[in-house]
Amino acid sequence: MLKISNRAIQMPASPIRKLVPYAEAAKKRGIKVYHLNIGQPDIETPKQILDAVRHSDFKVLEYSHSAGNESYRKKLVGYYKKVGIEVTTDQIIITTGGSEAIIFGFMACMDAGDEVIIPEPFYANYNGFAVEAGIIVKPIKSSIETGFALPPIEDFEKAITAKTRAIVICNPNNPTGYLYSAAEMDILKLLIIKHNLYLFADEAYREFCYEGTHTSAMHLTGVDDHVVLMDTISKRYSACGGRIGAFVTKNKTLIDATMKFAQARLSPPSFAQILGEAAVDLPDDYFNTTKAEYKLRRDTIVNRLNAIPGVFCPNPGGAFYAMAKLPIDDSDKFCQWLLESFSYNDQTVMLAPATGFYSTPGLGKQEVRLAYVINVMAINAAMDCLEKALEAYPGRI
Amino acid sequence: MLKISNRAIQMPASPIRKLVPYAEAAKKRGIKVYHLNIGQPDIETPKQILDAVRHSDFKVLEYSHSAGNESYRKKLVGYYKKVGIEVTTDQIIITTGGSEAIIFGFMACMDAGDEVIIPEPFYANYNGFAVEAGIIVKPIKSSIETGFALPPIEDFEKAITAKTRAIVICNPNNPTGYLYSAAEMDILKLLIIKHNLYLFADEAYREFCYEGTHTSAMHLTGVDDHVVLMDTISKRYSACGGRIGAFVTKNKTLIDATMKFAQARLSPPSFAQILGEAAVDLPDDYFNTTKAEYKLRRDTIVNRLNAIPGVFCPNPGGAFYAMAKLPIDDSDKFCQWLLESFSYNDQTVMLAPATGFYSTPGLGKQEVRLAYVINVMAINAAMDCLEKALEAYPGRI
Repeated sequence: MLKISNRAIQMPASPIRKLVPYAEAAKKRGIKVYHLNIGQPDIETPKQILDAVRHSDFKVLEYSHSAGNESYRKKLVGYYKKVGIEVTTDQIIITTGGSEAIIFGFMACMDAGDEVIIPEPFYANYNGFAVEAGIIVKPIKSSIETGFALPPIEDFEKAITAKTRAIVICNPNNPTGYLYSAAEMDILKLLIIKHNLYLFADEAYREFCYEGTHTSAMHLTGVDDHVVLMDTISKRYSACGGRIGAFVTKNKTLIDATMKFAQARLSPPSFAQILGEAAVDLPDDYFNTTKAEYKLRRDTIVNRLNAIPGVFCPNPGGAFYAMAKLPIDDSDKFCQWLLESFSYNDQTVMLAPATGFYSTPGLGKQEVRLAYVINVMAINAAMDCLEKALEAYPGRI
Repeated sequence: MLKISNRAIQMPASPIRKLVPYAEAAKKRGIKVYHLNIGQPDIETPKQILDAVRHSDFKVLEYSHSAGNESYRKKLVGYYKKVGIEVTTDQIIITTGGSEAIIFGFMACMDAGDEVIIPEPFYANYNGFAVEAGIIVKPIKSSIETGFALPPIEDFEKAITAKTRAIVICNPNNPTGYLYSAAEMDILKLLIIKHNLYLFADEAYREFCYEGTHTSAMHLTGVDDHVVLMDTISKRYSACGGRIGAFVTKNKTLIDATMKFAQARLSPPSFAQILGEAAVDLPDDYFNTTKAEYKLRRDTIVNRLNAIPGVFCPNPGGAFYAMAKLPIDDSDKFCQWLLESFSYNDQTVMLAPATGFYSTPGLGKQEVRLAYVINVMAINAAMDCLEKALEAYPGRI
């Protein structure tokens, strides 16, 4: 018998996409489903950046430079400068989405059997990229009770072994929405210096901070060789389908090594590099407007959630996610039940069970992630559904 | 000291791109460089498929399905039917270039330490993808004397071990242009059945066959579970920058496993999927015209090469590459010398040393690859340069 690889067996299926067939079945029954389950923003991609692609007039759709177009990297230097990050064009490799930046980092910094520490709950696909790279994820638990603040430094110290090579931090966080403070970032700095680790910083939601200011890992001083920024334009400009991200580091040895991975796959997508380049020229009020809309939604969803008996939702400082603790037996069962067995005025809501974001088995069974990527009216309707659902759910505890 | 990974150290630098600084320096000195070194077609991307992107009118640049847009996969079913390949939409995963299709295949079918057999010379980036997947490439030598025909079956038998999981075949071949016959494909079929192996078929240049007809690995009967097609639109439609390819297999277990890798990276690029979908509707004469142009160039370059004293170039049956044996000491030195120390009427030519396409050290020192991606007039001018260069080269043997 032909066999698939062990890593293919170990590769986790998407915890978010596994409920899709139930949602499709519900829709076929005539039920309207409010999608709070995925991080696909509904906010329109700015017209001027789509137009930059539509008005392009090249004759041959050529490979770009393996590191991405130089003109785009030059623009990005300006973008990063605006957010307090000083880098040069040769410290940036344009990637195919943030996903590829993460894979490049895992591949270039770690060998099979090496360990990476990630506060959980975390972005589920880090697991998949770890399997691809043959590395081991060591989760450290953060708690909904503290709003998913950085776990105590002792927990990191306990998890660090001779095999540990890196810490991954997503800030502001997906799935928790937590915004790490400058003091917490300094703790991470101490750790990476003391134990000689890389700090992989996923800052996809940098612009969407509602409380306090964002401290980038690239703002930390004296750790230039340690810090790798894994960036993406997907959420920033509602441009998920462009598949454009960036691998950014001041570590010369690392960027040179990573260029070899970039060369092997030839180049990042050309069309969306045009879009990304145009996005740097968006007026400053673009983020103000977008952020105001997300903040309004956050306030709405958090208020509505906390008003439901038995529900607790800490106020997320950034991104467009909220994690809520529900009075339920099992979030996987509950989310499936919402699609399979429940409706209110022919409507229901699709949520992401938090179990998929925890690496430790058994965690997240009473938690769900809600992506506020639908407008306030839809959020209110979805919360009406959730409120009624929690009253009706047989597994309520 | 922070270390990069061993695989990052092992990762090969692009053998084609290492000469770029010498080409840039030559251009700064006022020398015109004819680029026969890379497979970037000069032929214009069909306007109607670029226009499909330019006239698109969506509002949000969303993630597509992880397997690619269903509408595109439906169209592709029709495209494959035209070339005698019967597949369904759920046997196709749209990938980010052919590169990603190859990585998916290596990752999903093989574990670290497993072996893959590839006739050499071969597409250099297979080496990089093998390093990423931790697998070992076992080359089998094909010879310029036989025009790079499939090596004898005994050579495969000798190379197969308990660790062997797959054979990679690129047909028509990059870098040799060799078009494998139906009889050779049948030999591969015998091998994969006897030894229970996967057959990875890279058929990027399927449409560009000048002698005889193309036998796809997907035409082989009775080996549905063995065959994986790693496809791309890059060369077919001069759309390299789109980064759109496809992973195609009738093996249900394998495609299900591969979908997990596809889900982890979310989706292939959205813009170029529109282009790919439109390309399926190009009139049939598109390939006739393009193929006629490439054939004219092939005839020109092969005739010119064989007319130079001491040069031998077998007539390639497909793709847009020719491999030539030159009367030189070392192809790396020669190609660098062409850029650094030679010019004829202020012009020179950039070639790819064949050493980068051989996995066995020492092979390819008298061979170069020429990509005929410039027009006939430019090819003639480039051949004038090469002829004079071979007269002047100090390392001539």
